[in-house]
Amino acid sequence: MKMSSWQQRAITEMNNKTKPSGALGELEYLAIQLATIQKTLTPVVYPACVMVFGADHGIARQGVSAYPCEVTAQMMANFSAGGAAINAICKSVNAHLKVIDVGVNADLKEFKNIAHEKVNAGTNDISKNTAMTEAEYHQSMKTGGNYAEAAFEDGFKTLALGEMGIGNTTSAAAIICALTGHSAERIVGSGTGIDKQTLIYKRTVVDKAVSLHLKKSNDPEYILQALGGFEIVSIVGAMLMSSKLNLITVVDGFISTAAALCACAINPGIGEKLIFSHQSAETGHRLALAHLNARPVLNLGLRLGEGTGAALSIPILHSAATILAEMATFEQAGVSSKAETP
Amino acid sequence: MKMSSWQQRAITEMNNKTKPSGALGELEYLAIQLATIQKTLTPVVYPACVMVFGADHGIARQGVSAYPCEVTAQMMANFSAGGAAINAICKSVNAHLKVIDVGVNADLKEFKNIAHEKVNAGTNDISKNTAMTEAEYHQSMKTGGNYAEAAFEDGFKTLALGEMGIGNTTSAAAIICALTGHSAERIVGSGTGIDKQTLIYKRTVVDKAVSLHLKKSNDPEYILQALGGFEIVSIVGAMLMSSKLNLITVVDGFISTAAALCACAINPGIGEKLIFSHQSAETGHRLALAHLNARPVLNLGLRLGEGTGAALSIPILHSAATILAEMATFEQAGVSSKAETP
Repeated sequence: MKMSSWQQRAITEMNNKTKPSGALGELEYLAIQLATIQKTLTPVVYPACVMVFGADHGIARQGVSAYPCEVTAQMMANFSAGGAAINAICKSVNAHLKVIDVGVNADLKEFKNIAHEKVNAGTNDISKNTAMTEAEYHQSMKTGGNYAEAAFEDGFKTLALGEMGIGNTTSAAAIICALTGHSAERIVGSGTGIDKQTLIYKRTVVDKAVSLHLKKSNDPEYILQALGGFEIVSIVGAMLMSSKLNLITVVDGFISTAAALCACAINPGIGEKLIFSHQSAETGHRLALAHLNARPVLNLGLRLGEGTGAALSIPILHSAATILAEMATFEQAGVSSKAETP
Repeated sequence: MKMSSWQQRAITEMNNKTKPSGALGELEYLAIQLATIQKTLTPVVYPACVMVFGADHGIARQGVSAYPCEVTAQMMANFSAGGAAINAICKSVNAHLKVIDVGVNADLKEFKNIAHEKVNAGTNDISKNTAMTEAEYHQSMKTGGNYAEAAFEDGFKTLALGEMGIGNTTSAAAIICALTGHSAERIVGSGTGIDKQTLIYKRTVVDKAVSLHLKKSNDPEYILQALGGFEIVSIVGAMLMSSKLNLITVVDGFISTAAALCACAINPGIGEKLIFSHQSAETGHRLALAHLNARPVLNLGLRLGEGTGAALSIPILHSAATILAEMATFEQAGVSSKAETP
C-alpha cells in the first residue's frame, strides 16, 4: 500500500530519535499510526472516550451463555452505578465512559449515566430469522455514527468501542464465520465460561445461523443485519464515523473485532485507522485478528468485553504518542548514532 | 507454596467481583499479587518511581555493541536534558524518574537530575578479570539498597528498575548463562542491533567469561561480582531492599531480568514480590523469564532498556489495583452470578 506523506514523515522522525532503530518495537508502529491518522508529528490521545453499547439477543434464550439474559440489564445498572470493571478501568486510565442502551430487554430509564436509544428490546433468534429489520439496522448504524460524531464534537481524540449483551459472542462468532469463511468449530469459544455441552450446542447454533443467512447473500451489510445485534451494528456505525473524522478508533475484544470485520468489509479504507487493543482469550479472536492483519497491543488473556481491553490500551497509545512528540533526535541530543560507529 | 492470608482474601474478593471468574485474565493475577505485597485489598501503585542506574563496561572495548562506549555518557546527558525514551514514557505514565551514575566513564557532575554515586569509571573486562573488586561490589549493592530505601521514605509505592550501559547485554547474558546453565548460543542476542559477525564474537566472549569465572565459584554473589556491572549490582541491591520494604518492584527487560535472577538466587523469597513488566525482543529473555516462572505483563518487542518496559507497565498495574479496590461484588450490584443459572 502507498504510504501517506504523514506516514513517511513519522517514520523518518521516529528513526532519528535517540534509540536504536526499532528498539521500541510495537510502540513505534503505534506512534506512526497515530501520526498518520491525525496528520501530525505530535499526535494526541487524550481526552479519550470509551463508549459501551448494550443490547439483548434473541439467541440467548436458546441457552448459549453461562449467564441468564437478565444480566445484560443488571450490568447496565452496574455501569450506571459505577461498579463494573469498565468503570474502574476508565477511572484508572482517565477516560470518559459513555453507556448507550440500543436494545436492552428492560426499561433502563431510571438509571443515570445511560443514554436511551433503544431500537428494540433485543434481536430475533438468528438461527431462525434475521436479527433485525432493515429499518432497525439503519437506525442502529445511524445511532452509532451519531454518538461517534458527538464524541468528536465534544473534543475527544480517541474513541474506544465496547459492548454489553448476553449472547453476543454467539452473534459475533456467526459474523466472523460468515465474513472469514472459518467454521464455527474454529471460531466459537467458551465466551464468559460455558461448559463443554453448551459449547457444542453453541457451535451448532452458529453453523445453522450462518448457513441460513449466507444462502441469501454474503453482502457484509446483509450479514450484519441478519447475524448482528443492535450493539454490534452501532459499533460498526461508530467505527465508520470515528475513522472518517480521524479519531483514534480503538477496537476491544471478540465482539468489537467482529464489528471491525464488518466495518472493514463495508469500507476497506478504514483498516489502517483502527487500533486493535488486545488479543482476548476467546477462541477465534486470533483468527479474526489475523484476517484483518491486526497487531494487537496487549495480550492479557482478557475475555470480558465492556471495552475493558480497549480502555487498558489507552495509556500505551498515550506513551507511543509522547515518544514521537517529545523524544530528542540524535542530532538534538548530541548522541552518537550507530552509523558513526567505526 | 503456601498462600498468605492476604493472597487468599484477595482471591476471594476478586472472585466476587461482577465479572465471570478469570475474565480479566492477567489483570486478576496482578491485582492479587499487588494486594499480597501491600497486605491490603485496596493496593495503591502511585506515586511510582522509575530508577535508572548507569555504568560502563570494560567488555564494551572488545566491540560487542553496535554503539561506541561514549554513548553511555551521552545518553546520561540525554536523560538529564529530558530527551530520551524513558523521559517521554515517565512523563506519559506520570512516574518520577531518578537517574543515578554508579560507574559511567565520564564526569557527569555538570548534568542536573543525575545522582553521583560513581563506584569506578567502568568495570574490568569480564573475559579476563572479575568485573569489580569485592569492595566495589558491596558499594554498588549498598548504593542500590540506599536509593530504594530513599524511594520508600519519599512515599513511593512502586519502584521500577532500569539501566543504561553500553555493553551491558553482554554482562547480563553472561550472568544468565551462569545462573541458568543455558549456553551463550541460546542466550546471547543482537542487543541494540549488532551484525552477525559481532553476534558470533559476542557469544565467544560470553562463553569465555562464564567458563573463566564459574571455575572459581557458582555462588550468585560471586557470579554477580565477576560478571556484573555496577548498574546491575545496584539494581540487585535495589530489588532486595525494595521487596523487603513491600514496594511494588518492577523488573524491566533483559538486563533488569538478569539482576532479578541474581536477587532471587540470593534471596529466593523475593520472587513473588517482583512484577515482570515485559518480554523483550532480546534472544534469551524468554528463557530467563521462564527460569523465574515469570508472567510478563507486556509483549511489545521492546529492546531498549532504560526502564522503558517497566515504566510502560505501570498504568496496567494501576488498572489492576483499581479493579480490586473499586469494582462492585455480585451481591453489591444485584447482578445474577453464574452459580444462579439453571
